[in-house]
Amino acid sequence: MSAKKKYNIRFRIWFYADDDKFLGKGRVELLERIKEVGSITNAAKGMKMSYRQAWQMVKEMNESANEILVEKSLGGKGGGGASITKAGERAITQFHDFEQKVNRFIAEESKKLTI
Amino acid sequence: MSAKKKYNIRFRIWFYADDDKFLGKGRVELLERIKEVGSITNAAKGMKMSYRQAWQMVKEMNESANEILVEKSLGGKGGGGASITKAGERAITQFHDFEQKVNRFIAEESKKLTI
Repeated sequence: MSAKKKYNIRFRIWFYADDDKFLGKGRVELLERIKEVGSITNAAKGMKMSYRQAWQMVKEMNESANEILVEKSLGGKGGGGASITKAGERAITQFHDFEQKVNRFIAEESKKLTI
Repeated sequence: MSAKKKYNIRFRIWFYADDDKFLGKGRVELLERIKEVGSITNAAKGMKMSYRQAWQMVKEMNESANEILVEKSLGGKGGGGASITKAGERAITQFHDFEQKVNRFIAEESKKLTI
């Protein structure tokens, strides 16, 4: 018999607030980009998404969260910008931390497989 | 401030053998149906899948696994059947157990979120 194959396990996680999608990989990336570029329009461009889609995602996140994650700032050329709140920062950090914990757990558990 | 929302976390897992997809929710369901009905054709029908697709999935699973999961039995009316090997049984059980463990871990970890 040939050497035993090792399986590696991939996963995706999504946070829901009741039945509403709250956070996933894509939304967290959007938050990170808004943080970086200070604008929903430019964050959307970076992800090849329309402003409309990005704004919809921001709206849904803000509505699902206990405290809003993104706030719009007023005025200026190009219609003003957007920034991440403290709750937005926590959302980014905690989503990544969660992914890492699940990743470690899964890597450990996968050693026990005997398929 | 209104009552704090509780987030629930959903996930999907996939087992890979190197870069080849080995098992996922759909494939495990296919194995279970083959076990139940004793035929790839009928298992495929139950999942509204073509025989071709189902056979391709079986082929990929068998190639990725250390021991084949599905074996074809010869002859009979309608071209013979298929059955699940002992390794196939283990694959079904261990995939579900794995999902359950991840589920418990995630439920526990999600209590620590402060978003």
